[in-house]
Amino acid sequence: MSDTLTSTPAADGYRMPGEFEAHSGCWIAWPERTDNWRLGAKPAQAAYAAVAEAISASGEPVTVAVSDRQFEHCRSVLSPSIRVVEISTDDAWIRDMGPTFVIDDAGGRRGIDWRFNAWGGLNGGLYFPWDRDDRVAAKVLEIEGAARYRAPIVLEGGSIHVDGQGTLIATEECLLNENRNPKLSREQIEGALHDYLGAEKVIWLGRGVHLDETSGHVDNLACFARPGVVLLTYAEDRGDPQHEISEDALARLRAATDARGRRLEVITLPSPGPLTITAQEADGVDQVAGTLPRRAGDRLAASYVNFYLGTRRIVFPLLDERHDARAAEILRGCFPDREVLGVPAREILLGGGNIHCITQQVPAP
Amino acid sequence: MSDTLTSTPAADGYRMPGEFEAHSGCWIAWPERTDNWRLGAKPAQAAYAAVAEAISASGEPVTVAVSDRQFEHCRSVLSPSIRVVEISTDDAWIRDMGPTFVIDDAGGRRGIDWRFNAWGGLNGGLYFPWDRDDRVAAKVLEIEGAARYRAPIVLEGGSIHVDGQGTLIATEECLLNENRNPKLSREQIEGALHDYLGAEKVIWLGRGVHLDETSGHVDNLACFARPGVVLLTYAEDRGDPQHEISEDALARLRAATDARGRRLEVITLPSPGPLTITAQEADGVDQVAGTLPRRAGDRLAASYVNFYLGTRRIVFPLLDERHDARAAEILRGCFPDREVLGVPAREILLGGGNIHCITQQVPAP
Repeated sequence: MSDTLTSTPAADGYRMPGEFEAHSGCWIAWPERTDNWRLGAKPAQAAYAAVAEAISASGEPVTVAVSDRQFEHCRSVLSPSIRVVEISTDDAWIRDMGPTFVIDDAGGRRGIDWRFNAWGGLNGGLYFPWDRDDRVAAKVLEIEGAARYRAPIVLEGGSIHVDGQGTLIATEECLLNENRNPKLSREQIEGALHDYLGAEKVIWLGRGVHLDETSGHVDNLACFARPGVVLLTYAEDRGDPQHEISEDALARLRAATDARGRRLEVITLPSPGPLTITAQEADGVDQVAGTLPRRAGDRLAASYVNFYLGTRRIVFPLLDERHDARAAEILRGCFPDREVLGVPAREILLGGGNIHCITQQVPAP
Repeated sequence: MSDTLTSTPAADGYRMPGEFEAHSGCWIAWPERTDNWRLGAKPAQAAYAAVAEAISASGEPVTVAVSDRQFEHCRSVLSPSIRVVEISTDDAWIRDMGPTFVIDDAGGRRGIDWRFNAWGGLNGGLYFPWDRDDRVAAKVLEIEGAARYRAPIVLEGGSIHVDGQGTLIATEECLLNENRNPKLSREQIEGALHDYLGAEKVIWLGRGVHLDETSGHVDNLACFARPGVVLLTYAEDRGDPQHEISEDALARLRAATDARGRRLEVITLPSPGPLTITAQEADGVDQVAGTLPRRAGDRLAASYVNFYLGTRRIVFPLLDERHDARAAEILRGCFPDREVLGVPAREILLGGGNIHCITQQVPAP
């Protein structure tokens, strides 16, 4: 089923469901590039594997996409219940390079293949080239047997969150960034979000998490726990640049109504750290021209919001012993029907993202 | 479903069905290497695509495995109904590098991942290296969701044919060749064929088709049309070295009984040609050390037996205008319930095999 559709999901009766709606499965791509992941990516692979196992063990089928070079190793590391398929990538952020799935009310499921430019192309992108990443969504859709919309805009899955009822949250820093779709106005972007995701109302936040290299993806800042309820990372320390960013987001969310006219409840999660890259960590990364360097002392864009919202289990990043337990407590309160499991995620964070960034759910039709 | 099983199919109640039994689908791998396929493999790709379309159009789902490098081109060439997935290969003979599927009586389907050494390893193999080919079967089985037996012997799918009722035909030239399993006796090979394919009786033919570079695969020489009926390529010309080979095979088949004690009916197909490589054809192939050269004047191992036996359609190679019509007529007589379709296949033949070699059926469970 490889049809490339020339219509739009909205015109065809399709919408993006909330991540909290039931899933059929989850995709993850295997990390490999040694100019982003330290020590030949082995610690990152262990962290990715732990995330894959945590999701799989909850009963949600997991597929891991991996290069031919790492196929045998990846297959040998993961449980037999996890499917491993060959897909070449430039890095391992399937949230952003993978498809965004949409569903209709008649049991249909299709996928959107956005244009991908490595978070900014030649104007702030994180590496070059990114052509293999841009082919990933089409390959996933072939295996999933889902028809494909090739969207005419640059967008990453991590830059949007939806409530499945017409509301979308995103940051101006990312979606209106000149390194994504410089010729499109805010209204034109909103039009695309309507046409492809079914967004009737966009709630615009300002900046993403401090120093987030994705140009401020919303999935590191805030997400929907369910319709009407948003989780937000929040730094208490007024001297931390993240404080003002979180305050601004909080104010915007509290002032907003969603597509159905509801006020939003906002639940805050503590901000880890500040966390910085150690000299030992930086030393393990190959320095390569054209790839964002990992330097000792650089602050990491850590956030507990960057979790996977599985059908039966929340898999959230363990990042900072001072805050992990409180984050887990809040998540348990927020998701009383789901198990909440923390997975050590510093090695993912060192590569520039976290658990939400490395996963892509396949919604149940 | 990536379990690697340590038992054997026979011990688990599984057997290889005949190719004439119903299929769930068919796999093909995309040709690419320019040291085997002339003119950048473009003519071969067109021929492969025609085979894929012919099978797909008969209602049998086709999956084409292709490298990342050729993914977009391959996808753009084939109909949307054909699934295209990334799988790296060393060449494009999925009959030989792909899995052999086995089924049981309870709706189960599993796959055998044979050891592969490029038709002879360092002692007559056709290219080096072949590690990507050897990973193909595992990758196919991941996508098919079939558990995997990793067989302890070197074997290619084209070197065996079965009647699905306990009988297997093979050539001594190939299965007993010292470049495959030099430490195993005839009896030990028969034991493996029993354990993995359910073969209770092996009917040994002698040599394969004259100059067949696979060390004489049976799938270029003879095949089961149905239990009790074998098709055999036959050269009338007594001066042709193929005549003696076909005569010997005919004598052995007529002398044999199958696993159920039946005598075999043997139907002969005309031998095309002799066909040789033209200077123009040879000139289009990159000459590379370690790969079997394609030289002007070399005889091609052409045979009409090398067809795909689809659920509803026979797809056979058009090779020689002097014999194509007669071959089609015989096939129609042999398969009255199936459509018989010829596809121009010289470009496949130039690479060393034919339509059966480039296809691998997935039997219906």
